[in-house]
Amino acid sequence: MPETEWKTAITRIEPNKVQLRGYKIEDLMENTSFVDVIYLTITGNMPDPKASKLLNAILVSSIDHGVTPPSTISALTAASTGASFNAALAAGILSINKHHGGAIEDCMETISEAVELKKETGDTKTAAEKIVTVYRNKKKKLAGFGHRLHKKDPRTAKILELSKESGMFGQFAEMAVEIEKALKISLGRELPLNVDGAIAALLLELKIPKDIGNMFFVMARTPGLIAHIYEEKMRQKPMRKIIPGKYEYDGKTDLKLKLAERKERL
Amino acid sequence: MPETEWKTAITRIEPNKVQLRGYKIEDLMENTSFVDVIYLTITGNMPDPKASKLLNAILVSSIDHGVTPPSTISALTAASTGASFNAALAAGILSINKHHGGAIEDCMETISEAVELKKETGDTKTAAEKIVTVYRNKKKKLAGFGHRLHKKDPRTAKILELSKESGMFGQFAEMAVEIEKALKISLGRELPLNVDGAIAALLLELKIPKDIGNMFFVMARTPGLIAHIYEEKMRQKPMRKIIPGKYEYDGKTDLKLKLAERKERL
Amino acid sequence: MPETEWKTAITRIEPNKVQLRGYKIEDLMENTSFVDVIYLTITGNMPDPKASKLLNAILVSSIDHGVTPPSTISALTAASTGASFNAALAAGILSINKHHGGAIEDCMETISEAVELKKETGDTKTAAEKIVTVYRNKKKKLAGFGHRLHKKDPRTAKILELSKESGMFGQFAEMAVEIEKALKISLGRELPLNVDGAIAALLLELKIPKDIGNMFFVMARTPGLIAHIYEEKMRQKPMRKIIPGKYEYDGKTDLKLKLAERKERL
Amino acid sequence: MPETEWKTAITRIEPNKVQLRGYKIEDLMENTSFVDVIYLTITGNMPDPKASKLLNAILVSSIDHGVTPPSTISALTAASTGASFNAALAAGILSINKHHGGAIEDCMETISEAVELKKETGDTKTAAEKIVTVYRNKKKKLAGFGHRLHKKDPRTAKILELSKESGMFGQFAEMAVEIEKALKISLGRELPLNVDGAIAALLLELKIPKDIGNMFFVMARTPGLIAHIYEEKMRQKPMRKIIPGKYEYDGKTDLKLKLAERKERL
Repeated sequence: MPETEWKTAITRIEPNKVQLRGYKIEDLMENTSFVDVIYLTITGNMPDPKASKLLNAILVSSIDHGVTPPSTISALTAASTGASFNAALAAGILSINKHHGGAIEDCMETISEAVELKKETGDTKTAAEKIVTVYRNKKKKLAGFGHRLHKKDPRTAKILELSKESGMFGQFAEMAVEIEKALKISLGRELPLNVDGAIAALLLELKIPKDIGNMFFVMARTPGLIAHIYEEKMRQKPMRKIIPGKYEYDGKTDLKLKLAERKERL
Repeated sequence: MPETEWKTAITRIEPNKVQLRGYKIEDLMENTSFVDVIYLTITGNMPDPKASKLLNAILVSSIDHGVTPPSTISALTAASTGASFNAALAAGILSINKHHGGAIEDCMETISEAVELKKETGDTKTAAEKIVTVYRNKKKKLAGFGHRLHKKDPRTAKILELSKESGMFGQFAEMAVEIEKALKISLGRELPLNVDGAIAALLLELKIPKDIGNMFFVMARTPGLIAHIYEEKMRQKPMRKIIPGKYEYDGKTDLKLKLAERKERL
Repeated sequence: MPETEWKTAITRIEPNKVQLRGYKIEDLMENTSFVDVIYLTITGNMPDPKASKLLNAILVSSIDHGVTPPSTISALTAASTGASFNAALAAGILSINKHHGGAIEDCMETISEAVELKKETGDTKTAAEKIVTVYRNKKKKLAGFGHRLHKKDPRTAKILELSKESGMFGQFAEMAVEIEKALKISLGRELPLNVDGAIAALLLELKIPKDIGNMFFVMARTPGLIAHIYEEKMRQKPMRKIIPGKYEYDGKTDLKLKLAERKERL
Repeated sequence: MPETEWKTAITRIEPNKVQLRGYKIEDLMENTSFVDVIYLTITGNMPDPKASKLLNAILVSSIDHGVTPPSTISALTAASTGASFNAALAAGILSINKHHGGAIEDCMETISEAVELKKETGDTKTAAEKIVTVYRNKKKKLAGFGHRLHKKDPRTAKILELSKESGMFGQFAEMAVEIEKALKISLGRELPLNVDGAIAALLLELKIPKDIGNMFFVMARTPGLIAHIYEEKMRQKPMRKIIPGKYEYDGKTDLKLKLAERKERL
């Protein structure tokens, strides 16, 4: 094959035909959810309904976390100078890295290592203790544990609960919870599994490769960044000084979901 | 209020509490779809099930269109030099502009103008004819009509069909179809409504503001770009010469959706 | 010519030969300054020594303005999350737009309009007064005048002085100064020509097209952004909260240039 | 010091005063070159004239290499979709990574390692041979050697010649040349030091830290990318298919520098 010829296995395009990973796009549009198709596009496989429901919860959990994350600050800063929507979004996405959003991949790595160790130790608890010892001895941070604001993050609890209900709580999730326990004993204080850590465990259950883990955070956060850019353009003066701590929330509060209506379609 | 204080109405964050547009995040995670929450985050309102189903179809329709779109080429080119996932994605998103993806906003503008004209002309057909005449006299391009590859784009047909089924085919969609007819008569040949044009009409039905229309394309295409970046990193050598026309599709073809299984959850 | 063939007039590459705008790269490396070659690359023409000296002053004037400009904040925010140098730089560059750096192009436009008007009015003063009146009647901002911090910006004074010394103070610079006077009379207070405005006038003297004016600001600021990204990576903890107003300068102060040594080579 | 207070040592800003690394900006504008101030801004030190002349040659050497490098392709692709100048530039810069431009930092690493080894081996030749053996045994690529197009790159020859003339050809440059020789013997064929390798050696002579080496390539290439974006916007139709190999050079050729005029000011 000449050097310049190349192959792709994602989408087949012919006149009046679009097939995504082998499925007609019009069939996907009618019969599958955006979340199904995200999974399909990236992994090449259609998720089963319980995997899809779990991935849905993961994406919803990370769609926004207010105005203080650095990705939001970068996007707002760019927007404030008059950047177009996509340029401000790009500035936001360029601020999602090792120290913001990146805990997902690092924690996927840690949990995978611990699950490897389990082959030697035979049980989850010992493997979890061992990985905590190894990391602490190397003075290496255990990504996915602890949060600067939340002690009991409602997202973590819900994501684990949903994974149990749907039978997706497997060896990786179990290991994440054991590491949390081993950490508490080792440190003498709580350093709870955070939402990134829970997502890490469940992306492993969903067979997502480690090096693409953070991209699920990026996909989830993209609509949130767009909402902030839009709010900046609508509500704020250009070139304002953006001080992360000086904001106030003035939106709606304490709304109740009309469950009957939603259940109908889920 | 001092200049440096500011307000946001998107997400309320307190220790152990996250409310998005007034709803508890854990309730959203359990009971709503990612598409619902995209709409909620950006517009501030929860979509009803038929609006959500239509937006789902829109997002699925645009998730990928193979390796030739410029946003894909930019993302692949960056990835090929060793860019991180988010940097390659940013390069891709920076290539979604007026001439690629941008037809959505331009067509939303045209359809809105025509619907305004209808107040004068009284009927859709005359307004559609008038807008075509106005644009042709100004030698202005009617965005959202014609496609370099597809004459009968399966996505356009399906999106219109679904909007009719769900009762979302309103005055904007009607106008888009009338403009297509008026164009055919005026030009003496078909210049069919394309998928961008159909999306434009239906985003208007969904009450999406015009200046944020293209961002729905960006949100839809983000997972597709990520899939291409991942494929580049997995399958290709670094620094290859990327020639848009020299690729071959070697993925799956002609798969059938197992509808029974999917229906169960939709 | 087939659609896919295209032409470029910037650099000619052949095995063991590189010619930039017609000149051998090795001759340029030995005999011209980076500033000469910037001008040559972008405009296609070699600047004469006085134009080069003026462009040098323009680029030096804008290389950095501390930690508060939005482009610096975006770059630091991205760097703080662990972005690579080029990704953090891209985030910074994406924050140089209409309201930051953009005054250059807008002011080039205004000065050009005024110089056009002069063809009617016959003299600079009347044209300047007219443009001020037109802008004020339309409630349009005159870009390039006023600064939030500096009343007598040392950069503006120096750039005008140098342009006079080198004989580059022509009709555009003269018009900029007349507009400053007309503005003072019209407003009843000083709104001095700022560094962006002075650069705008002198880029016009240098025959730089208006739509590329801001790119000179971007080229000038790129090394400054890189210095800030490097400082962030060297001196700061990851994921810190970056508060624009809370910094202190702790570098060198009041150094004197050893002029004898520099003169030797300029 | 409270967590939110921070320090910067680059630029001191006060009303009507700007000092860069301790020097008045207006003095720099008048008496130093942009290249001097680039070095000053990034390293904190004013270069002496011979260092400045060498850095000038480095920056000029890399300002452009035609339309085929991936950073140019990304920038053109973005521009072709209607991206703004700064967005297209950002897309280009995001495509400068390990495999394009990145050889500089990797080669700085290799040369530094070899110079370390010299402390053991006592002489340059043995250290160079050892590093070649080590890399070949590890099947690790020696960055900075070989070029896909140029066998005798005129830039490499000139940059080494200038460094010798100015007395900047020190132990790092010497080592680079020795590694080239050792490679030839080890491989049985020439794999000449390329321009990235020569720049790597000379940035080490200029005391530039390794992790910022590539940024000198980025600074150099920025004006080139801007020239290409401008050419794309001026000469090409939007959304064209950009085929890297199908271009033709139609600019000026074989111009002679008027040396008398240039010498006058250098």
